[in-house]
Amino acid sequence: MFIAKVIGNVVSTQKNARFRGMKLLLIQPYITKEGRLQISGSSVVAVDSVGAGVGECVLFTQGSSARLTPATKDAPVDAVIVGIIDAVEVEGAVLEKP
Amino acid sequence: MFIAKVIGNVVSTQKNARFRGMKLLLIQPYITKEGRLQISGSSVVAVDSVGAGVGECVLFTQGSSARLTPATKDAPVDAVIVGIIDAVEVEGAVLEKP
Amino acid sequence: MFIAKVIGNVVSTQKNARFRGMKLLLIQPYITKEGRLQISGSSVVAVDSVGAGVGECVLFTQGSSARLTPATKDAPVDAVIVGIIDAVEVEGAVLEKP
Amino acid sequence: MFIAKVIGNVVSTQKNARFRGMKLLLIQPYITKEGRLQISGSSVVAVDSVGAGVGECVLFTQGSSARLTPATKDAPVDAVIVGIIDAVEVEGAVLEKP
Amino acid sequence: MFIAKVIGNVVSTQKNARFRGMKLLLIQPYITKEGRLQISGSSVVAVDSVGAGVGECVLFTQGSSARLTPATKDAPVDAVIVGIIDAVEVEGAVLEKP
Repeated sequence: MFIAKVIGNVVSTQKNARFRGMKLLLIQPYITKEGRLQISGSSVVAVDSVGAGVGECVLFTQGSSARLTPATKDAPVDAVIVGIIDAVEVEGAVLEKP
Repeated sequence: MFIAKVIGNVVSTQKNARFRGMKLLLIQPYITKEGRLQISGSSVVAVDSVGAGVGECVLFTQGSSARLTPATKDAPVDAVIVGIIDAVEVEGAVLEKP
Repeated sequence: MFIAKVIGNVVSTQKNARFRGMKLLLIQPYITKEGRLQISGSSVVAVDSVGAGVGECVLFTQGSSARLTPATKDAPVDAVIVGIIDAVEVEGAVLEKP
Repeated sequence: MFIAKVIGNVVSTQKNARFRGMKLLLIQPYITKEGRLQISGSSVVAVDSVGAGVGECVLFTQGSSARLTPATKDAPVDAVIVGIIDAVEVEGAVLEKP
Repeated sequence: MFIAKVIGNVVSTQKNARFRGMKLLLIQPYITKEGRLQISGSSVVAVDSVGAGVGECVLFTQGSSARLTPATKDAPVDAVIVGIIDAVEVEGAVLEKP
């Protein structure tokens, strides 16, 4: 899993039937580098399965495992938000969330 | 999933039998960066499952989940278009589509 | 899927039993960039499932979907050639094949 | 699998039900380069399945295989720690662990 | 699949039960570039399924397909050596092995 910040959302009307009712969030991955959380890599569109919203720091899962939440079961989905992050601790210190 | 623009198509006559009748589109991934949608990464060949066409902004799924649409079931396919994007919203603003 | 050119082959005698009789081709991925097909990324060893040969432009599939051809069923294979490409069209123009 | 060092942990209260009781560790991948173990790539959040702790050098598995430990069975998990590394040997020499 | 050279091994005592008896080799991927085999990308820890040893040039498989050898069945493994490479031929020439 990776850490990300929810930065927006994606609207699609003409889509696969399994996407009906799904909340599609745009998330920006973050990594820890030099003791801080820093932007890294490409923005991803992930299905929300935990009630996440814009501005929150989340944990997301990719690949076939993204289908193992109640919200995404058997759907053609390859990224899902599985948790809202309260804290990231590195070497005893709590990092500032983005 | 990632955001992409449909930029072309691929024609193949000699191919796996499961590809018969599939529309193979060439898509260019985009990511959000500095508040805009920007080209990122390699062009991908994806099967269309939602009636997408050249010039449209789409959502695509990769990996084993790409087989979970009616168009791609049990096929040796690792990328599929699952939605046509109406809007990408970042921090309250609707981004210009590529 | 991605576009690639078949550039060679790999010979292996001591190998997993499921690889017996498989044709292992070395392929170089290409992407579209600035209206042309350009080399991109690492060379890959892919199983041929469509009768492809050196010099041909092909379509290949990666990951678990690579096992869904008659040639690769249930084999420990993560890349397979699924089509020989006749043409790649971008914005109405047919690109020159590598 | 890749080599990593456990550098911290992630706390999440609002999460997928299958994550209850899981220990989420933040790990930094390392690769061998010029005869040494060096930091490489993005930090990853992995589930612990072997009793690993901060500061230890571990082996981790990604993708669907990450669900094949007792700790992660059927969970929407894409990274798991599967071993604590005692030694990495390259060309007869034991490398210094990070 | 990718080409790699076996450069070392990894020792782990405290590990997932399915790893008992597995030989964990450290491998360095190689790609073809400018008509030669060159180091590319991160070193990987792969399970040996064909009797490979340090110094040999091998073929390895990643992802869920890595579980489809007798040595790795149902194990939380994402990389496995599936063949020892005798020769890599590019445009009629046999490349020097690393």
